[in-house]
Amino acid sequence: MTVEPPVIRPVGHVRSPLIERGHAPKQGDEGAPEAWLVFEPGMRRALADLEVDADVIVLTWFDRARRDVLAVHPRGDVSRPETGVFSTRSPDRPNPVGLHRVTIVSVDGTDVRVRNLEALDGTPIVDVKPVLGGVAEH
Amino acid sequence: MTVEPPVIRPVGHVRSPLIERGHAPKQGDEGAPEAWLVFEPGMRRALADLEVDADVIVLTWFDRARRDVLAVHPRGDVSRPETGVFSTRSPDRPNPVGLHRVTIVSVDGTDVRVRNLEALDGTPIVDVKPVLGGVAEH
Repeated sequence: MTVEPPVIRPVGHVRSPLIERGHAPKQGDEGAPEAWLVFEPGMRRALADLEVDADVIVLTWFDRARRDVLAVHPRGDVSRPETGVFSTRSPDRPNPVGLHRVTIVSVDGTDVRVRNLEALDGTPIVDVKPVLGGVAEH
Repeated sequence: MTVEPPVIRPVGHVRSPLIERGHAPKQGDEGAPEAWLVFEPGMRRALADLEVDADVIVLTWFDRARRDVLAVHPRGDVSRPETGVFSTRSPDRPNPVGLHRVTIVSVDGTDVRVRNLEALDGTPIVDVKPVLGGVAEH
């Protein structure tokens, strides 16, 4: 098997009223708006079993983040000590993959409306995964 | 700002007794062994605040996965109907990013030992993130 280079091929993008990074909440459960996940037409089969009211994990690529940042003041609060980015959810990190737990509001073809997504408009979507509970739920 | 292409630069790799895909458990809480997260030397500051006994989320790149698979039989059970990969945790998916909740056992420089990691030996590490609880915990 040939190992491919680890290049993300976006499966869609976020359509959101959040345009500027300064206006986005730090986390989706802190007042993030509803948003659309606009998938590529070729992804129809991959998303066909997404269900309204389900919670899912969306992975995004923070395309406006800095990749050379290794430590930050948590939540941008300079009164807090600098913390290694692997202990924070800062979008600035070596591989700026965003992890978002959202609730599906509606599905319209390849457009999926979700609640509690703090990603900015235009952010590429990397993946969607089900939330797992214990072994019994797998 | 220049938008970089979305290329993963691994921050380390997994060192595990799991060598072959057929031997790996489907999920980390189904009998996965302890493993090492072996980080690149340049990542020392990013991981400096990881703490023993903490649960963290590790993102990996399933470098032996297929990226052209859009639907699978869940857990490889052909008696179950084919399901879109965005509703499964199959490693075969358009962007094969693995999501693993693990517990940190020890930290030795840039080597971090964890419990419950089902990724194969050599798997590139993409990111580490803290587990978030409610707003109060952020």
